[in-house]
Amino acid sequence: MRKTFTKIVITGLFFLPLRAHAQTETITGFTTITSGTQKQLESRFDQQLDAQNIGAAIKTFSAKPHHISSAGSKEYATLIENKLKSYGFDTRIETYTVLFPTPITRVLEMTGPTTFKALLKEPLLKEDATSGQQGQLPVYNAWSADGDVKGDLVFVNYGLPQDYEELEKLGIDVKGKIVIAKYGRSWRGIKPKVAQEHGAIGCIIYSDPKEDGYFQGDVYPKGAFKNEYGAQRGSVMDMVIYPGDPLTPGVGATQSATRIASHNEAPNLLKIPVLPISYHDAEPLLKALEGPVAPPDWRGALPFTYHIGPGKTKVHLKVAFDWKMVPCYDVIGMIKGSKLPDEWVIRGNHHDAWVNGAGDPVSGLAAMLEEAKSIGAMVKGGWKPTRTLVYCAWDGEEPGLLGSTEWAEDHGAELQQKCVVYINSDGNERGFLEAGGSHALTKMMDEVAKGITDPQTKVSVYDRHKAREVVSAAGTKAKKDVLAETTMELDALGSGSDFSTFLQHLGIPALNLGYGGEGPGGEYHSIYDSYDLYKRFKDPTFAYGVALAQTAGHVALRMSESELLPFDFTDLYKTLQNYTTELQTLTETMRDNTAIENKLLSQSKYVLASDPSKTFIAPKAKDEVPYIDFSPLQNALVTLQKSTDSLVGVIKKANAAGGNHDALNKQLYQAEQQLLLKNGLPRRNWYRHAIYAPGFYTGYGVKTMPGIREAIEQRDWKEAQEQIGLSAEAITKLAAYLSIIMR
Amino acid sequence: MRKTFTKIVITGLFFLPLRAHAQTETITGFTTITSGTQKQLESRFDQQLDAQNIGAAIKTFSAKPHHISSAGSKEYATLIENKLKSYGFDTRIETYTVLFPTPITRVLEMTGPTTFKALLKEPLLKEDATSGQQGQLPVYNAWSADGDVKGDLVFVNYGLPQDYEELEKLGIDVKGKIVIAKYGRSWRGIKPKVAQEHGAIGCIIYSDPKEDGYFQGDVYPKGAFKNEYGAQRGSVMDMVIYPGDPLTPGVGATQSATRIASHNEAPNLLKIPVLPISYHDAEPLLKALEGPVAPPDWRGALPFTYHIGPGKTKVHLKVAFDWKMVPCYDVIGMIKGSKLPDEWVIRGNHHDAWVNGAGDPVSGLAAMLEEAKSIGAMVKGGWKPTRTLVYCAWDGEEPGLLGSTEWAEDHGAELQQKCVVYINSDGNERGFLEAGGSHALTKMMDEVAKGITDPQTKVSVYDRHKAREVVSAAGTKAKKDVLAETTMELDALGSGSDFSTFLQHLGIPALNLGYGGEGPGGEYHSIYDSYDLYKRFKDPTFAYGVALAQTAGHVALRMSESELLPFDFTDLYKTLQNYTTELQTLTETMRDNTAIENKLLSQSKYVLASDPSKTFIAPKAKDEVPYIDFSPLQNALVTLQKSTDSLVGVIKKANAAGGNHDALNKQLYQAEQQLLLKNGLPRRNWYRHAIYAPGFYTGYGVKTMPGIREAIEQRDWKEAQEQIGLSAEAITKLAAYLSIIMR
Repeated sequence: MRKTFTKIVITGLFFLPLRAHAQTETITGFTTITSGTQKQLESRFDQQLDAQNIGAAIKTFSAKPHHISSAGSKEYATLIENKLKSYGFDTRIETYTVLFPTPITRVLEMTGPTTFKALLKEPLLKEDATSGQQGQLPVYNAWSADGDVKGDLVFVNYGLPQDYEELEKLGIDVKGKIVIAKYGRSWRGIKPKVAQEHGAIGCIIYSDPKEDGYFQGDVYPKGAFKNEYGAQRGSVMDMVIYPGDPLTPGVGATQSATRIASHNEAPNLLKIPVLPISYHDAEPLLKALEGPVAPPDWRGALPFTYHIGPGKTKVHLKVAFDWKMVPCYDVIGMIKGSKLPDEWVIRGNHHDAWVNGAGDPVSGLAAMLEEAKSIGAMVKGGWKPTRTLVYCAWDGEEPGLLGSTEWAEDHGAELQQKCVVYINSDGNERGFLEAGGSHALTKMMDEVAKGITDPQTKVSVYDRHKAREVVSAAGTKAKKDVLAETTMELDALGSGSDFSTFLQHLGIPALNLGYGGEGPGGEYHSIYDSYDLYKRFKDPTFAYGVALAQTAGHVALRMSESELLPFDFTDLYKTLQNYTTELQTLTETMRDNTAIENKLLSQSKYVLASDPSKTFIAPKAKDEVPYIDFSPLQNALVTLQKSTDSLVGVIKKANAAGGNHDALNKQLYQAEQQLLLKNGLPRRNWYRHAIYAPGFYTGYGVKTMPGIREAIEQRDWKEAQEQIGLSAEAITKLAAYLSIIMR
Repeated sequence: MRKTFTKIVITGLFFLPLRAHAQTETITGFTTITSGTQKQLESRFDQQLDAQNIGAAIKTFSAKPHHISSAGSKEYATLIENKLKSYGFDTRIETYTVLFPTPITRVLEMTGPTTFKALLKEPLLKEDATSGQQGQLPVYNAWSADGDVKGDLVFVNYGLPQDYEELEKLGIDVKGKIVIAKYGRSWRGIKPKVAQEHGAIGCIIYSDPKEDGYFQGDVYPKGAFKNEYGAQRGSVMDMVIYPGDPLTPGVGATQSATRIASHNEAPNLLKIPVLPISYHDAEPLLKALEGPVAPPDWRGALPFTYHIGPGKTKVHLKVAFDWKMVPCYDVIGMIKGSKLPDEWVIRGNHHDAWVNGAGDPVSGLAAMLEEAKSIGAMVKGGWKPTRTLVYCAWDGEEPGLLGSTEWAEDHGAELQQKCVVYINSDGNERGFLEAGGSHALTKMMDEVAKGITDPQTKVSVYDRHKAREVVSAAGTKAKKDVLAETTMELDALGSGSDFSTFLQHLGIPALNLGYGGEGPGGEYHSIYDSYDLYKRFKDPTFAYGVALAQTAGHVALRMSESELLPFDFTDLYKTLQNYTTELQTLTETMRDNTAIENKLLSQSKYVLASDPSKTFIAPKAKDEVPYIDFSPLQNALVTLQKSTDSLVGVIKKANAAGGNHDALNKQLYQAEQQLLLKNGLPRRNWYRHAIYAPGFYTGYGVKTMPGIREAIEQRDWKEAQEQIGLSAEAITKLAAYLSIIMR
């Protein structure tokens, strides 16, 4: 499901602490001797990885449509289980019963000034063997409401809150109207949600060729980019409230689970109909719009003048869905730990796709299965993992992380006891390592990244990652800062893949790993996410499938074999320090901007600068930004720093002493749970992590210290102050917890 | 001819000195008593101005094509003379003999992979009465070389030096090829010049709908923007070397003038053929290109993927011109000064157009004629100007400032003796006052702007100008800075209209005035620059014609009537101080960037960050930026400050003393001549002003302190040091000159 992942999360973290190059003889978590053994283990692991095998798996698992509830999904779940079994894993399929709507009716037509009926169909292409297969889900947005609406059409750009502020200035209201928004800039689900908040009765989401079509590159089948008929399926469940089965928030969707009576009562489902369309279908609608010309940054790449509307353009949107309960097949494979069977290192990737999903998710799934094969081979060779390794293939990720969420909710208590780390992956392609997750794992990840060779350039994937980072850094100062860094930073995690419940609901340390950036295209969630396209444009030699298998595999093996788990809370502390500075800067910037904007408004500068022949309604002045007390947060960080500083010593001692560290290890991997907020986040208490959450108005995009940050962004100063208190409490709790370790 | 004037020149000047609001009882240059008389004079002047009359004049003077050498041009010159005569001016037409090429052959065709023949024609429209008239010049670039070339086509973005740096990284060379460049980002003449420097054999310039078509707004006739067939005529003479008749640099093109033997020897003419085309004609050529996909900011708004080429696309470009000598009719009207007949206040606007030119130049011309009418009426009423008023309508501005340049060169010595100021205007439309010129006139201009009411908002044109400035300022800091300002700043003048020779060759104080910003469109230099379009989209009530007449008229009357000419060299000093700071910052920034870029190159970061499946050639490291000695400039400024400080006192004293200030006045208006460089600018000694010149690689765009700035930009550190010395010399000369006044 993940997409434009890096683009978004990178905004989460500004600068990183400087540290000496971590590439030493010993690996964090191991002694000098065991470091050597571990390195041998990892190279034995690497030798088993086979790019051609990964390619074959991608072909196999994308041969048919396999969305949740399809025949393909069940067939592939069974096939995955059999593979894992054959590798020597104890396997089972855990089945949950979840709600999953599929379309019965999809109609979009223009009834005036001219008439036009949208195709809503991606054609079969002779260059793409699986295009046009039977049983492929048609183009739709899962969790749209049923609806049959007629009305004026208004173009709302990306459909974000700031776009509606622009509309207000132009005197345009969407109440009772149907809006058309572009894909991009936010997770798709935000667009209908904000439209609904503004009184729209329906929402069309289209792919503009500017972001997702010929403007970007040659279109399919000549190139990989979206052709005029391509459209993007996807969930519009409001999963920033909670993901998973909408009827069973917080609990596993077992047969016997108590459920919300009807999808109409689910608090994370929309009340208005939504439909995604291609630019072929969008063109006549947009072209017919009247009203003001759209602001420059609203205009796309279609060959006419973009107007906002409304005008004579009348649109009829009708969608109806089959809201059925379906089975959700999670495949679980285990290899019991020889010494610590009750400490689980969990690795996961989803197996369901919107259609054939060669890239999303099969490219990641194939790499994970290759890891499992290699581990299995070592086990057959007599090796045994110290901790238990759990390999999972999730169903129903696309509609809203259904499989992973229900499983993690179902096994929540046990996971909080046993799970050392959850390692996630999803779609994968040629390019650069993208790693996000719990910041106490920064050092471990840094060491792993420096040990993996980039298939194309033969430098480490760390070096390539850094090269891209410094080249894309804006300005001399930023470039200097990046050059000064000597470690791989971790992006903060928002949402968009199966790590969410583990990290943000249960407080389990998590990582999300993948390669990308050199396989751009427009196949995402379309029938063209096929083996043929993947092979031509994404990772022709499947070498990056191997790179992912190595990266995730090395992480899994270090987490399963280390004597002392490689958590470093100093890195977490430094990250929190940076976030706190960010929040203070954010507040000051908002204060400055508000003051100057209000001054300009009071002097009617905007009116005088605007063209009197056009409608311009000056916005209302905003309330001034008060000074907020950040001291509780700052004091909590001082306490945390003390704890983390002394913890360094404790770990050194323990390392030197050797022997059994089981108690200490358990305390280390459970530490992150201390950061869970007692009552969760405001208005969405399913999300309990004080540091990481998807943004209420960005979706996949992370908000770090979300309680505080979003209160500030929403100008709710009272809540901001409360949230500072609550986050400070959580951080102090962690500090106290870590200092207990030292006794 | 001017276009995107503001956009470019605004970059010239960053922040402005703060000063108290200048709106006082007395007007600078007048006593408390005479200020009152002057105000009455100006309101009498205003009462005579009639919008309908201006509208009628725009209709009259755009009824026929009237480019230089056309029947229309001669007819209109005579009509202008008769009007001025009827207003009471002593008039004459001064005729020069200049070279002016018109097209005989224009062929552009694609010979492969498919065939296509460019239309090169703007169609007649029923909504536009003068479209498709007989005798309209076809679409072409004047001063293109004759040529018949065949070759591969390469897309070079805007055709600027940095675009060729990008091509080098992609391993693409234009030697022996034909380039196609977009209009925009620079004066058009820069594009073929840079193409020629890189070995191209031909240059096509097209209007992309992104900058100049449907992306901007509805196209003509529905809206004012360029339709698919519209194309932009214009000169590609390299007038940054020298403007005017290419055969007579530095001297008036009289019958008897010694001329360069042939246009082939003129140093400011191209050696390669150039042709401007519409996006209708460009589309098949661009669409057929192969090779790498163009970088994101190279892509326009045509509905396909932009490639750079080369590929199979073969192009044939053939142009031939009739290089004939033609008469150039400058209309000169004078009203002799009653007290100071040998002090001339000169007002000018060109009368020639590329086609019908309702906007460019007739909208400015009509305003100027309305001023002349009003002044004439006052003279008939018994009033007499103190100084001589000279109203001029120039011919041949479009091909390269021919009329104004030849006249100013012809009368250079006399003008340097007599001319107090040259006040220019050109195209005019609804919107905001744009004023540029000699910075010693800042205070005078500020006072005038504060006294003129904006027709739409009824605040002063100063207030509206400032409102736009603060709203468009980027960032809180910039907005605060603008809010703190209390005066109208003057933009520095580059080129693009008839002020150039007066200011940059002769050192005569000059101003360029106009309104704009609320009449955007694509008619520029096309057959659609018509009365019909102007009336609908540019200034429907002609109220801004009146505003321009008021603005330029008040300036003319203050310059002609003031007892003490309102020059304030403190403003000039402060401006030079800012330019010097800019140059130092520019050097430091370049030093920083060079250091970091070279570091990234030495660590092959760019190679590692680039996609190995695509060609990428890392650029060579640039020479480090040495430390340059700015002290000569800084010391010169200290001297200048001393002079200007004491001059303030001298002027106060003189004011108090009253009586005859003739000697002082003459010294004041001749002061700017002290800033002329003995040997002019490097490689273009026609340009002699140490402070203002059009950019060697921007064209119309100004370069302030050009000798120094361009040496730095071109990384010629030795020349930069020399130019600092020479500019310092000129500034010291001015300082000494001003201190002499005080004796």
